[in-house]
Amino acid sequence: MNPEPIFDLAHLGHMELLTPKPDESLKFFVDVMGMTISGRKDDSVYLRGWDDYERYSLKLTASKTSGMEHMALRARSPQALERRVSALKGSGFEIGWTEGDMGQGPAFRCRDPDGHVIELYYETEWYQAPPDQKPALKNQAQRFPARGVNVRRLDHLNCLAVDIKANRIFFENYLGCRLTEQIVLNDGTEAAMWMTMSNKSYDFAYSRDHSNTPGRFHHVTYALDSREEILRAADIFLENGVHIETGPHKHAIQQTFFLYVYEPGGNRVEVANAGARLILAPDWKPIVWTEEERKKGQAWGLKTIESFHTHGTPPVESPSSHSR
Amino acid sequence: MNPEPIFDLAHLGHMELLTPKPDESLKFFVDVMGMTISGRKDDSVYLRGWDDYERYSLKLTASKTSGMEHMALRARSPQALERRVSALKGSGFEIGWTEGDMGQGPAFRCRDPDGHVIELYYETEWYQAPPDQKPALKNQAQRFPARGVNVRRLDHLNCLAVDIKANRIFFENYLGCRLTEQIVLNDGTEAAMWMTMSNKSYDFAYSRDHSNTPGRFHHVTYALDSREEILRAADIFLENGVHIETGPHKHAIQQTFFLYVYEPGGNRVEVANAGARLILAPDWKPIVWTEEERKKGQAWGLKTIESFHTHGTPPVESPSSHSR
Amino acid sequence: MNPEPIFDLAHLGHMELLTPKPDESLKFFVDVMGMTISGRKDDSVYLRGWDDYERYSLKLTASKTSGMEHMALRARSPQALERRVSALKGSGFEIGWTEGDMGQGPAFRCRDPDGHVIELYYETEWYQAPPDQKPALKNQAQRFPARGVNVRRLDHLNCLAVDIKANRIFFENYLGCRLTEQIVLNDGTEAAMWMTMSNKSYDFAYSRDHSNTPGRFHHVTYALDSREEILRAADIFLENGVHIETGPHKHAIQQTFFLYVYEPGGNRVEVANAGARLILAPDWKPIVWTEEERKKGQAWGLKTIESFHTHGTPPVESPSSHSR
Amino acid sequence: MNPEPIFDLAHLGHMELLTPKPDESLKFFVDVMGMTISGRKDDSVYLRGWDDYERYSLKLTASKTSGMEHMALRARSPQALERRVSALKGSGFEIGWTEGDMGQGPAFRCRDPDGHVIELYYETEWYQAPPDQKPALKNQAQRFPARGVNVRRLDHLNCLAVDIKANRIFFENYLGCRLTEQIVLNDGTEAAMWMTMSNKSYDFAYSRDHSNTPGRFHHVTYALDSREEILRAADIFLENGVHIETGPHKHAIQQTFFLYVYEPGGNRVEVANAGARLILAPDWKPIVWTEEERKKGQAWGLKTIESFHTHGTPPVESPSSHSR
Repeated sequence: MNPEPIFDLAHLGHMELLTPKPDESLKFFVDVMGMTISGRKDDSVYLRGWDDYERYSLKLTASKTSGMEHMALRARSPQALERRVSALKGSGFEIGWTEGDMGQGPAFRCRDPDGHVIELYYETEWYQAPPDQKPALKNQAQRFPARGVNVRRLDHLNCLAVDIKANRIFFENYLGCRLTEQIVLNDGTEAAMWMTMSNKSYDFAYSRDHSNTPGRFHHVTYALDSREEILRAADIFLENGVHIETGPHKHAIQQTFFLYVYEPGGNRVEVANAGARLILAPDWKPIVWTEEERKKGQAWGLKTIESFHTHGTPPVESPSSHSR
Repeated sequence: MNPEPIFDLAHLGHMELLTPKPDESLKFFVDVMGMTISGRKDDSVYLRGWDDYERYSLKLTASKTSGMEHMALRARSPQALERRVSALKGSGFEIGWTEGDMGQGPAFRCRDPDGHVIELYYETEWYQAPPDQKPALKNQAQRFPARGVNVRRLDHLNCLAVDIKANRIFFENYLGCRLTEQIVLNDGTEAAMWMTMSNKSYDFAYSRDHSNTPGRFHHVTYALDSREEILRAADIFLENGVHIETGPHKHAIQQTFFLYVYEPGGNRVEVANAGARLILAPDWKPIVWTEEERKKGQAWGLKTIESFHTHGTPPVESPSSHSR
Repeated sequence: MNPEPIFDLAHLGHMELLTPKPDESLKFFVDVMGMTISGRKDDSVYLRGWDDYERYSLKLTASKTSGMEHMALRARSPQALERRVSALKGSGFEIGWTEGDMGQGPAFRCRDPDGHVIELYYETEWYQAPPDQKPALKNQAQRFPARGVNVRRLDHLNCLAVDIKANRIFFENYLGCRLTEQIVLNDGTEAAMWMTMSNKSYDFAYSRDHSNTPGRFHHVTYALDSREEILRAADIFLENGVHIETGPHKHAIQQTFFLYVYEPGGNRVEVANAGARLILAPDWKPIVWTEEERKKGQAWGLKTIESFHTHGTPPVESPSSHSR
Repeated sequence: MNPEPIFDLAHLGHMELLTPKPDESLKFFVDVMGMTISGRKDDSVYLRGWDDYERYSLKLTASKTSGMEHMALRARSPQALERRVSALKGSGFEIGWTEGDMGQGPAFRCRDPDGHVIELYYETEWYQAPPDQKPALKNQAQRFPARGVNVRRLDHLNCLAVDIKANRIFFENYLGCRLTEQIVLNDGTEAAMWMTMSNKSYDFAYSRDHSNTPGRFHHVTYALDSREEILRAADIFLENGVHIETGPHKHAIQQTFFLYVYEPGGNRVEVANAGARLILAPDWKPIVWTEEERKKGQAWGLKTIESFHTHGTPPVESPSSHSR
């Protein structure tokens, strides 16, 4: 009998996004994405989708550059958090405990092999809607905003990394995340991975940084309820002068219906819908995509555009000089 | 520190539905619902939605009457199955091991306090699509049928029970299921409950049987990808002379977009869509609905129709003579 | 060879709606319906959907009561307008020329047999979007607002009348409108009619006023792009405390997907979607619905609710004392 | 006062499509597109969408090559037909009367300046659904098939032509069609045109044939009810091995949501949705798109793919040798 899989982490809780244009970025997330401000502290504004149950899912921080400062993963229980911390201690990946943040209890920080900062936490503040944000239905965190794209909740994020395999092993062994799909090149190199902690088919993804720069960020994704809402989002981005990078279209990998834009700070943002697709099998076998299969493009034939492979944040000086 | 929650069961795997009109019921599930036959044995036909990863999710069995023969819940691991079996043994609820069924390994049978039969199992046969059912995308179990309603996967089921509270306690204590929403009457009686084993906001529900007959069945639900597909399903049911009981509309409880019909054998069948709604919080606090709140009807004001409270399978002789 | 049909009128241009609660009604149309103010004069505010090509489609006027002051139909050409005016002169239905209104040239006023005021006009001011309303695509009148329900354009209106047949004959003979569907009771009484001037399956409808009060109004309807948007509109109405009368559901007659609410002034407002349905046949044969067929309810079985037969504007003193 | 516009033609009635692979093409239209066979004669099969009111909208004819044999436009009345025939006689474009075709009365044939054959007719046979095709709602021509893509009705077609301006003038002057949008190059050359006879924003389009070969065909388009159905159609085409050329995406011109595929005979077929967009203005001013504007690609930024400019039917020997 195989050892039991680890089920200690529950989901991606939030991420901290850096922006060199804080006012414009904030306007984008509030007016265009339809998010709500649920806190401010120092150089940061805390933002949420109307269905995020925690106080916030995005911490937007003014900075000299763009990219992700950290991601935060919520444990299933205090005991589960302790187990993951024990596993990390002495691994070389640990950073140590923080005192927490707005709406969040103590968090244990570590780094993945590529240097991205990851926080593990359990204690969290559930969102308390002020009177003007009270929803009509009591099983909903917040009133539907009816403004802009109306993003529902944080869905997943995507980091760039120099060595995908090393990161996969880290997330599997230390955090108990499960691989659901991956790209493996003809020479055996792992080029991208999609991992989950939940029944979502992925909570985060990593793809190879062709500039070989560690610690970079690819995109953060918010969920909408239907493919129709993604299409309408495209109209709204267009009307608001937001740069649409690619989409709407359907990914072959994970079959998500996607739309990618750049927020004013330069970070890539996705709105996406997975339909009713869930990974219910506790013993899901990872789907492996080959180079040949990837050449077919996305599900309905759209070719992946060049910038999708090169644009990450923070930007690198001269990406063209790097090997791919 | 509280004890850790139990995470031993993964999801509802399948159910066995009884029908006194096997030919007509089969035609309904294949031609109208768009399901695929993946096995036949004795008086049973095994059926699946195109995204069910196991060989089948519905076992349709010819019978003198209608209703549910059993439901089957898949454990997360062999060890998790053993733990649940240990908990059940000596509880008075256990029936014992079966040798399994088509595509399913040994299963441990028990009864809930209302008498419904529940099977717990781990070993299962993943669906192997024959050549004419091979999908274009390798991360999909089966080709999209493009026939009838095209149901995607088993979503949940709903049983009737005389004592909801007793059943809630059974599922919480012995199986580790989690309550997400419930109805509690003014006198404190629990009238309905929605429970989950996954990130879906419910994997099954129980509601009070006003005829006070134990062991009856309310409905089984298949998921579709969008509300638009539920609307189209209504058109297709109408064209095929299927009795539409109520909907499409949005439930206040759980916010599911629903449509209820009766299959030819008399069992209620639902097609539903939950949008991007998931219960990601590992410590979700159950939502409690009062009598007063229920009187408002469904989300957008549709009143719950009488038959929804009285129609269950198998039928009872004279429901009007029973207390409510 | 039959005489040629009349094609002199192009479409419903706008209507003037009376409200005893002008501030609340205006807030409803702007914040919830997502309409734009394109003019103000005296006690009136002029409003538009983002795809209305004329300056406005709704003139909202403060009044002691509710209801419709007039509807305005645009002729296909100056010559077509002259022909209709010639036909009306001496008919007993004419009122005479007005000097026009904001954004509208001279209009010829008449009354239908039930007393509703109808204006015929040709000259109109096309909407000129100010800089902050400029759309991204030049073939669109105005930028998509991304606010509230985002109604697209005026679709149709519905009046109540004491004698439907008399009104049908008036619209056919004097205005050249074409009947597409109607309800005829078992005793031969015409109970409702749907008429068109365009390829839309109806531009207006009339239904019998069971209070036998002439000149009343039933509802005005704005078009949305999809059934999905109607469903989202229901969520938005719910969140904003707007009274939802019935729907969303699909009409059997005309097959429109509908949702009815009351605006704060008491007038019924519909948002609707017709899909790709158009009446392309120039010789369409009217569909006649019987009492028996109407008893089946709407397309998917929803029963027509009582208030739909009784609520009109302005309200009548004691509707219950009137014959039905 | 300007002369009155001509309103003599009602809509595109049907087209005859040639295919060198009649069996495979028929299978595509019936099984994948979800169309119904409503007649057979000689080498032709007559096909229809479930909402086409006439007996058929597509005549599929076995041939040595691909392309369009003719298109057929229905007049608004017998008198209107006579007026158009009178205008054409002696114009040099006329061919003469035919005895009609299955389900169609006498038709007057002419050629546009590029040589495409156009039939004008009035008499037509309304579709009479056989018992197994009777719809549940009496205002619908045929039962919803629930098979494949379920195309609703013929929407428009697109021809290639060497001289767009000459064709525009022909359709305006002889047939009374109205230009709604066009592309005009920097040197003043008209490169594409969209024309209407109805409230649809276009009933047919013409675009420049870069191979300078006259009489070729670009695509025929069937309407679906929603953008969601176009997306699902993409899934179905993918599953059935149908070549997807481009889309789904939204056209900047006309804003139609589109998806292009090739049927087995090589002809391009589109499924499309226009939302609630209609041209209601009888005096619509044509939208003129410049070269610069076209370079922006489609509405949300998708670049128009090369084959869209080169692939037409019948194929030309060596398109690359022609000027563009």
